[in-house]
Amino acid sequence: MQNYILLNENAIYYECGFSCDNVIFIKLGKESFFITDARYTIEAKQYTQNCKVIESSNLVEEAQRILKKSKIKKIDFDPNDFTYSLYEKLTFGLKTEFIKKENFSKLKRIIKTDEEIEFLRKASKIGKKGFKQLAKYIRKNGFEQKETFLHFKAIEKLSSFGKYDLSFDPIIAINENAAKPHALPTNKKLKLNDLLLVDAGVKYKRYCSDRTCTANVNFETFNFKREQNFKNKKYQKIYDIVLKAQLNAISKARVGMKASEVDKLTRDIIEKAGYGKYFVHSTGHGVGLDIHEFPNINSKSDVIIEDNMVFTIEPGIYLPNKFGVRIEDTVVMKNGKVEIL
Amino acid sequence: MQNYILLNENAIYYECGFSCDNVIFIKLGKESFFITDARYTIEAKQYTQNCKVIESSNLVEEAQRILKKSKIKKIDFDPNDFTYSLYEKLTFGLKTEFIKKENFSKLKRIIKTDEEIEFLRKASKIGKKGFKQLAKYIRKNGFEQKETFLHFKAIEKLSSFGKYDLSFDPIIAINENAAKPHALPTNKKLKLNDLLLVDAGVKYKRYCSDRTCTANVNFETFNFKREQNFKNKKYQKIYDIVLKAQLNAISKARVGMKASEVDKLTRDIIEKAGYGKYFVHSTGHGVGLDIHEFPNINSKSDVIIEDNMVFTIEPGIYLPNKFGVRIEDTVVMKNGKVEIL
Repeated sequence: MQNYILLNENAIYYECGFSCDNVIFIKLGKESFFITDARYTIEAKQYTQNCKVIESSNLVEEAQRILKKSKIKKIDFDPNDFTYSLYEKLTFGLKTEFIKKENFSKLKRIIKTDEEIEFLRKASKIGKKGFKQLAKYIRKNGFEQKETFLHFKAIEKLSSFGKYDLSFDPIIAINENAAKPHALPTNKKLKLNDLLLVDAGVKYKRYCSDRTCTANVNFETFNFKREQNFKNKKYQKIYDIVLKAQLNAISKARVGMKASEVDKLTRDIIEKAGYGKYFVHSTGHGVGLDIHEFPNINSKSDVIIEDNMVFTIEPGIYLPNKFGVRIEDTVVMKNGKVEIL
Repeated sequence: MQNYILLNENAIYYECGFSCDNVIFIKLGKESFFITDARYTIEAKQYTQNCKVIESSNLVEEAQRILKKSKIKKIDFDPNDFTYSLYEKLTFGLKTEFIKKENFSKLKRIIKTDEEIEFLRKASKIGKKGFKQLAKYIRKNGFEQKETFLHFKAIEKLSSFGKYDLSFDPIIAINENAAKPHALPTNKKLKLNDLLLVDAGVKYKRYCSDRTCTANVNFETFNFKREQNFKNKKYQKIYDIVLKAQLNAISKARVGMKASEVDKLTRDIIEKAGYGKYFVHSTGHGVGLDIHEFPNINSKSDVIIEDNMVFTIEPGIYLPNKFGVRIEDTVVMKNGKVEIL
């Protein structure tokens, strides 16, 4: 059995059904230890499964005590999970050898359980409702509103006035700002026939949704549907290429393919259309407790796609200083094929 | 001259006037290198001062190349700033010795310039306006609203509908929830004569404000002023003790004192009133680009208070499962004394 130590909040939640922002989790064979401070012990005892909850004002000392007492020789850790400072403090004077296992928790989580998929499905459903509410707001009141304000409205609608946590800070970008894959909101104002890109998601029972829509702006029928009619013909041309790329991957991705082959399904379409060098990121990423999990859907990954993997399909074309288009859905592999969440 | 390497966004902003979420900053004597990816190079070249901006798709390799070329023997780094993984990659195969200097950037920033103080003053002013707007909302529409919704309204009012970034996720807590120093919002609803605690702040030019108010709830004259009349006499008793403790530190803290002596100014009042064990945190913390900077105002710190230090004074009493009171202002030391920002 594996012995390991975790600091990451989501990785620990996955292990025992509870987490908090100050905890060291240690697994020694069948035994699990949840070391936390006085603020969290009541809830930890109530919600963790099969864990010994230990209250301490010095988590590192307590972890060292447990490791010393156990006399185990080796323990796995994720070097991305530890600061150098904490690694030094934790290993100081210990005989236990710390073995680097990069991303071992995320690797464990690459295939989702049916329950996890239900949570992810529900998160996507809530996210889509939020997009609808935002579209409604834009139809009625969006004209001449600044990106910063629309960004705030995206938070309001997606979170349903604070009821749900967001998966990440939403991206809301008009025209040339949409050419930056990670645009920050500016004072630019929304006008008729602008191109508007929105990338946002919410959490349900800690599981994330993730979706990007690019849409033509009007103040009568504005919506985030796939079918978009851009007044600007250049926008429409690029939109159609990205949409074709996305639909190609959605319809043709199969269990048994390499992740790189799924990436190729979007990239080939965009390259053939002559915009390959403007598709500056990978096709997608896994989604779960973290917004970025495995599998990575990129041109280099040999990971074999399996049923119950959940990831995004999000091709994009970014024309610097002009505009950008990205279309993203989160999907699950079911019965060998893609199902959009 | 010091040679050092930084990853922290605010630490780098402090060095050169610009920052982003993917940068390695290296200072070698008089030369500064800002290594970032293609997304940020245009802005980096425009906004950094006295830096060589280097675009790279592999920041670690580029940093190694610069260090190798420079032939310097030693470079300082903050072990809290690096993951273990990144430390290993960066130092691999290098002859340069990495010297641990914990918090060296924050230590440099402990005394604020007059310009920084102006930014902090402006942030506090904007923050106070936000509190006023929130109070107005609560007077009109707060009755029976859930904490989660009020939490959202706090974000709306403090950020002025997304115009300003927040210093941190606001805390909004009713009655027994206020007994948790870091309460998360629940479905609890606001009622007449409840106790409401709000801890929130905004950023102005990246500098943070930080303020906590505890108030008696009514739907006619509700406000976040220091003078509060609680219908519940237990609330009033505890509020008066905390207020006395806070005012004692504000009026008596002086340049030349140790931070621990400032801490004692609040703690003594609370201890004498018999609630010492319910004041579970330190009196305050420095505020600047980061919401938590130096000096720490706690019972153990020997740091000498100087003019132009900026920190919070925020005593609290937390009665588990009953209620909690915290009163916090951010202050600057000027002419030897405290001035509230």
